[in-house]
Amino acid sequence: MTTTLPVLSPEVEAVLAFDERGLVPAVAQQFDTGEVLMLAWMNRDSIAETLATGQVCYWSRSRQKLWRKGESSGQVQRLVELRVDCDGDMLLLKVDQTGVCCHTGRRSCLFRAWRDGKWVEIQRVLISPGTLYGHSE
Amino acid sequence: MTTTLPVLSPEVEAVLAFDERGLVPAVAQQFDTGEVLMLAWMNRDSIAETLATGQVCYWSRSRQKLWRKGESSGQVQRLVELRVDCDGDMLLLKVDQTGVCCHTGRRSCLFRAWRDGKWVEIQRVLISPGTLYGHSE
Repeated sequence: MTTTLPVLSPEVEAVLAFDERGLVPAVAQQFDTGEVLMLAWMNRDSIAETLATGQVCYWSRSRQKLWRKGESSGQVQRLVELRVDCDGDMLLLKVDQTGVCCHTGRRSCLFRAWRDGKWVEIQRVLISPGTLYGHSE
Repeated sequence: MTTTLPVLSPEVEAVLAFDERGLVPAVAQQFDTGEVLMLAWMNRDSIAETLATGQVCYWSRSRQKLWRKGESSGQVQRLVELRVDCDGDMLLLKVDQTGVCCHTGRRSCLFRAWRDGKWVEIQRVLISPGTLYGHSE
């Protein structure tokens, strides 16, 4: 199957400062509660696809390919608004997260807090990873 | 003057995955409103200093030195809580931001939103950069 990828508009790209790998860090935040969910990376193609489809797509550095968040787990992120910082080298994605964001089955990837000299887990697992990725029911 | 830098405790470091430069991205979020303020980078020394002093200190990649946020502008960030993500390669700093975070004089660095095909400034300048950095009154 031949797929034509969306192209990033020059107006969006004009303010972006990609790093030497062609990437910018992107922070996903639940649009209504303000909870920070995760940080991942985006390249031109993933930003273009996200804006075109309204579903958040990152760039996987480990797999070197587009990473359509929730593609295997169903835990997608709908884009509510894209924001960019003063230097153009960081994106903020206001999203509506379906279910859980973290591959551990927690709502957010930021589930450990440094309290009283130790890391404390401050969120519980809502969906088991086995269920998330279809290894068990 | 000789200054002894705080050392990062092994318990903190145990969960951190620094990149090849010895850095991790850190997102600052206003602790009570949930507003995302900025993203910068931290190394071992800056994390250690932040935890020791309670005042946020980043690592400046351009200047290759510790960057004590607000040192010249007075717009400091008091650390309320440090959080880490599932992979240990991103930090979330819950902070109390004095005044404005952005060098442009806006509360947050994320002051541009992509709306209806163009970048829109959604925050106004609260303090002029000249006032912030002492070039004018």
